[in-house]
Amino acid sequence: MRTILEQIQQAAKRIEPYTVKTPLIRLSQLDSYLGCQVYAKCECMQITGSFKLRGAMNMIMGLDPEQLKNGIVTASSGNHGRGCAYAAKKLGIPATVVVPDSAPPIKVENIRRLGAEIVQCPAVKRFEVAEQLCQEKHAEFIPPYNAEQIMAGQGTAGLEIMEQLPEVDMVVIPVSGGGLIGGVSAAIKETDQRVTVIGVEPAAIPRYTASLPAGEPVTVEQKLTIADALVSNHPGTKCFPMVQKYVDRIATAEEEQILQAQKLLLTEGKIFAEASGCLGIAGVLAGRVAVQPDQKVCFLISGGNCSIQQLEILNSVEIPKEAERR
Amino acid sequence: MRTILEQIQQAAKRIEPYTVKTPLIRLSQLDSYLGCQVYAKCECMQITGSFKLRGAMNMIMGLDPEQLKNGIVTASSGNHGRGCAYAAKKLGIPATVVVPDSAPPIKVENIRRLGAEIVQCPAVKRFEVAEQLCQEKHAEFIPPYNAEQIMAGQGTAGLEIMEQLPEVDMVVIPVSGGGLIGGVSAAIKETDQRVTVIGVEPAAIPRYTASLPAGEPVTVEQKLTIADALVSNHPGTKCFPMVQKYVDRIATAEEEQILQAQKLLLTEGKIFAEASGCLGIAGVLAGRVAVQPDQKVCFLISGGNCSIQQLEILNSVEIPKEAERR
Repeated sequence: MRTILEQIQQAAKRIEPYTVKTPLIRLSQLDSYLGCQVYAKCECMQITGSFKLRGAMNMIMGLDPEQLKNGIVTASSGNHGRGCAYAAKKLGIPATVVVPDSAPPIKVENIRRLGAEIVQCPAVKRFEVAEQLCQEKHAEFIPPYNAEQIMAGQGTAGLEIMEQLPEVDMVVIPVSGGGLIGGVSAAIKETDQRVTVIGVEPAAIPRYTASLPAGEPVTVEQKLTIADALVSNHPGTKCFPMVQKYVDRIATAEEEQILQAQKLLLTEGKIFAEASGCLGIAGVLAGRVAVQPDQKVCFLISGGNCSIQQLEILNSVEIPKEAERR
Repeated sequence: MRTILEQIQQAAKRIEPYTVKTPLIRLSQLDSYLGCQVYAKCECMQITGSFKLRGAMNMIMGLDPEQLKNGIVTASSGNHGRGCAYAAKKLGIPATVVVPDSAPPIKVENIRRLGAEIVQCPAVKRFEVAEQLCQEKHAEFIPPYNAEQIMAGQGTAGLEIMEQLPEVDMVVIPVSGGGLIGGVSAAIKETDQRVTVIGVEPAAIPRYTASLPAGEPVTVEQKLTIADALVSNHPGTKCFPMVQKYVDRIATAEEEQILQAQKLLLTEGKIFAEASGCLGIAGVLAGRVAVQPDQKVCFLISGGNCSIQQLEILNSVEIPKEAERR
C-alpha cells in the first residue's frame, strides 16, 4: 500500500512525458494590492489550459489496457473534459465528454477539436447521463475529482511548488469538488508541514464552508457563479477527508472580488487566467485570507480557458489597493 | 574606459534595487504555431510594465546629483515616460514627460499617477518641445533610446537571458529607435557569439530595414502602426553602430501578423502583452524570421501596457498554425 506522497510521486513520473512543469512566477507588481510577496503557479499555462490534464492523464494511464479498449467517458464543466480528451487522443483511445449546457462555448469547442464526442445536458444531470453512456459503451468513467488517482495527479502541481519555491510560506488554491486541493495540500504538507494551505471557493456555492463544520460532505444549492469551473455543489467523498486532514482553512470570495482578481492578474500581473483560476487572489481581496507583508504566498492559478470576449465584463471593474481596503 | 559589457554589468548592479529580474518562461503551447521551442522573456512583467525602466533608471542614477536638482525631462510614446516618471519618483526628483497626442490614454494616465507633469504635442514635435522645456527648467533630458547609458540599462535584460537560459539559440527583439536591441544584442554577443540575434520592426516604419543597406541612419515616413511604442522614424545615431555590429538580421512584420502575435501570446501563451511587445513573434508568423523545430528561441516581450478595451480588435483575428502557413 503506497502512501499518498508515494502515489503523487508515482503520478509525477507517469505523466511527465505528457505534461509541462508550469512556471512559478514572482509577481511583485501585485504586492501592493495583496499585502504579501506574491507568487503565481501558472497552471493556466499547462497543456490544455488547466491543471486538469494532470489528474486525467494519471488515472487513465493507471487503468488496464483491456479496460481502456472501449474508451473513456467523463462529465465536466469543461477543463476536465478537455484534459480527458487530450489524454485519450495522446493514448489513442476514444473519449466521450458530457458537458453542462451552461459551459462556455470556447471550452466545448476546444474539447471537440481534440476528437472527443460531446454530449450536452443540464448541469445537475451530467453524472447520470455519463453513467448511462458508460453502460452503453462499456467504457470507463473518469471522474472529475472524486478518485484517488485524480487527486494524486493534481497533487503533482504541489510537488512542483515545493521544488520551485521551497521557502514558500502559504499556498492558496481554488476549490470546487476538492480534487485539486486534496492532492496539492497532501503533496505540500507531506513535504513540509510548516507551509499553510488555504482553499478559496465561490461564496455562491460554499460546499466546503458548509461541510467542514458538519464533519461530512453537505450538498448546497446549485447557484450560478462567474467561476464556471467551480460548480460542484458538494465535496467529493474521497476529497473531503483529504481537505479535513491537510487544509488549514477554507475561505470564500464573492463574485465582485473574483472579477477584481481576474482583472488584477491580467492588467498588473500580465497573466491571462479564467475567473475560476483567480479564487485565491479573490480570497485575499475579500479580506478572508489573512496575509503578512513578509510572507511568500503562492497563488495556484488553476486555469486559463477564457475567451477575449469574456473579458469585456472586466472593463467596469475597479481594483482597490491593499491600503484602501483597510 | 569601460567596455560595453562592463557598462551593462555596472548598470545591472546599479538598477538592481529598483527593478525586477523578469521571468523567462518556456511556452510549449506556442511551439506548434511558431515551429520552434518557444521561450518568452517577460519584460511586460517589469515594474512600470516595460523594459524602459532599466535604461531610464541607469541613466538617471549615473548623473551628478547637482545635475539632477532641477529634475528631468523626457519625450516618449508612453513606456519610457512611465519608466522615467517612476525612476524620478523613487529618486525624489521632479519629472516632466512630453507625450505624443496619439499615445493611448492608459499610458498617459499611468505616467500622471506617478507624479510627473505631462505635456502633450504632435509626435513629430516631441523632441523639440522637450528641448525647450529643458532650457526653461534647467533640467536634464533623458532620451528614450539614443544614449550609451540608456542602451547599457536595456542591455541588462540581455544579461538576464544569458543567465536564465544559457543554451538559448536565438533571441528575437522588437525594434524602434534601437535602444533595446542595441543593449541586449551587445550583452548577448559579448557573452556568447554563438547566439543569433534578430530584430523585428513594424513594416509600416522600417527605419532599420532602410538604414542598414544605406550604411547610415535613414529617416522613413512617419506612418501609423498598432505597435504604438515602436514609432521612431529613424535609428538612433548611437544605436545604429551597435545594431550593425551585434545584430544578425532585421526583419519586418505587417499589422496583421502583429495582431495575430498579440492574440497568440494572450490566448495560448496566457501572457498579456501590448502589440509592440509581440513583434518578435509577429516576425515568425510573417515567415520573415526562419526558425527550426529543435531551436530554443527566446522572444523578448518588451511591454504590457495595454487596456482590456484595446483587446477588442483581437476578436476577429485568426491565428494560422505553423503547418498552415507553409
